[in-house]
Amino acid sequence: MTQSATQFIQRMLQTHPQSGQSPFEMSALVECISACFECAQVCTSCADACLGETEHLSHLAHCIRLNSDCADICDTTGRILIRQTQPELSVIRAQVQSCLAACKACGDECKQHAEKMNMKHCELCAESCRRCEQACQALLNGMQA
Amino acid sequence: MTQSATQFIQRMLQTHPQSGQSPFEMSALVECISACFECAQVCTSCADACLGETEHLSHLAHCIRLNSDCADICDTTGRILIRQTQPELSVIRAQVQSCLAACKACGDECKQHAEKMNMKHCELCAESCRRCEQACQALLNGMQA
Amino acid sequence: MTQSATQFIQRMLQTHPQSGQSPFEMSALVECISACFECAQVCTSCADACLGETEHLSHLAHCIRLNSDCADICDTTGRILIRQTQPELSVIRAQVQSCLAACKACGDECKQHAEKMNMKHCELCAESCRRCEQACQALLNGMQA
Amino acid sequence: MTQSATQFIQRMLQTHPQSGQSPFEMSALVECISACFECAQVCTSCADACLGETEHLSHLAHCIRLNSDCADICDTTGRILIRQTQPELSVIRAQVQSCLAACKACGDECKQHAEKMNMKHCELCAESCRRCEQACQALLNGMQA
Repeated sequence: MTQSATQFIQRMLQTHPQSGQSPFEMSALVECISACFECAQVCTSCADACLGETEHLSHLAHCIRLNSDCADICDTTGRILIRQTQPELSVIRAQVQSCLAACKACGDECKQHAEKMNMKHCELCAESCRRCEQACQALLNGMQA
Repeated sequence: MTQSATQFIQRMLQTHPQSGQSPFEMSALVECISACFECAQVCTSCADACLGETEHLSHLAHCIRLNSDCADICDTTGRILIRQTQPELSVIRAQVQSCLAACKACGDECKQHAEKMNMKHCELCAESCRRCEQACQALLNGMQA
Repeated sequence: MTQSATQFIQRMLQTHPQSGQSPFEMSALVECISACFECAQVCTSCADACLGETEHLSHLAHCIRLNSDCADICDTTGRILIRQTQPELSVIRAQVQSCLAACKACGDECKQHAEKMNMKHCELCAESCRRCEQACQALLNGMQA
Repeated sequence: MTQSATQFIQRMLQTHPQSGQSPFEMSALVECISACFECAQVCTSCADACLGETEHLSHLAHCIRLNSDCADICDTTGRILIRQTQPELSVIRAQVQSCLAACKACGDECKQHAEKMNMKHCELCAESCRRCEQACQALLNGMQA
């Protein structure tokens, strides 16, 4: 229970009968899966926390929109990356690129609210989006090599 | 209840306070949303129907994998496209491109099982994937114009 | 493309190798699956339309919350019901009961906004929630018989 | 990055503007959210690992079915529990009960494959299902008190 999510995902992948055939470098893959699922959770939470900011709600509509899209995209990307059986690289690459775009857009928006309005949930969300954006970029870099 | 899913989605979009500001041509958008949600359902059903093909299961593992990915991607794409409040075009474009890739890969695989093994669920799934692939392409063509 | 969603789901179920073993009455099952997926789409759309109601946003926070929960629950319930391979009745029954509760709560809230604030997206959403609530109740009644 | 998922969820909830009004005991809530999201990931992974067990696939169809349902249910339950704005207790209670049922059914099935066939992914999945089942039960016990 006190292990990190990253370590748990690594253990799951190691038990997979076909994980030895993965086209990905294992540590980059584990980091990307972990970052996707964390970001999906944090964006779901940030959308809801913004919705609870009664006095600032009208300024946060764009943030809620981006959080909602990013949560759905990160969740789907995490599900696709965690699957190891007979992967289709064209699909995985396109979905990771979409995840990168969503995390960049959402992270940029949240960073503004963190800096200008001192919103702590947006600060945590911007951190998580940045981590996921970087993990997606690293995975894509490894695929193109 | 007897209206098509496409007509129902059109009615929802017409009630949206910001739908007049959509960057998309409305009939292409409605068709793409409808095709995404239909394909998500059909792929979920086809993955499960393949799982029930006890005698042919080992030949259908790749199909189940592609169905599962395509179901998740189409569902997320439909959710993102149905949202009209302050859309972020870079995110939408990337996700529609991923949906197009998933529908192409899954449709190609299902078409083979429909033709070679006479699998009726794969035949319906291939049709639905092709419809969604074309709707994604039409929407992307309209965005780039 | 002009067929109803209900008809399409029925065609998919008829191609399933194990659909003859379903513990459900087929027309009640098809109606419930169709209602779940429609309601998931409508609730996603209504949450976003409420978010776009700039002047009334603070009154719609509870509605957005209920729409978001109902969208997630209906989508999951539809996915579980459309699967026919070796169903587990205790799981299905509990998830359909949750869907019924979510549709009742969300439908009641949307009905108020439809009547008091003349919100057309909430009116359509209330209709869809009511249809899904009734379809879940009918399915549960059939299970207990 | 090395913090546990549980700690990260706790930090997010602490930044929520309405978290002080939660009807739940905070440590039980955090544990349940963390367990739901972990179980959703592990079940997605176990379904796919079972699909990759080429020689044993026909014995694992029921397990894949239960994994798929449990993954969807746990993901939805985690999303609903992480939201703090104006919660609807009837909906939350019903969804947590469904999650408990899904984790019990899936955990029991995976435990059998872990013991009889020495499947390591099923062993990890059974652990994660059991943790989530207990966390759901603890949360429900606290609600009824």
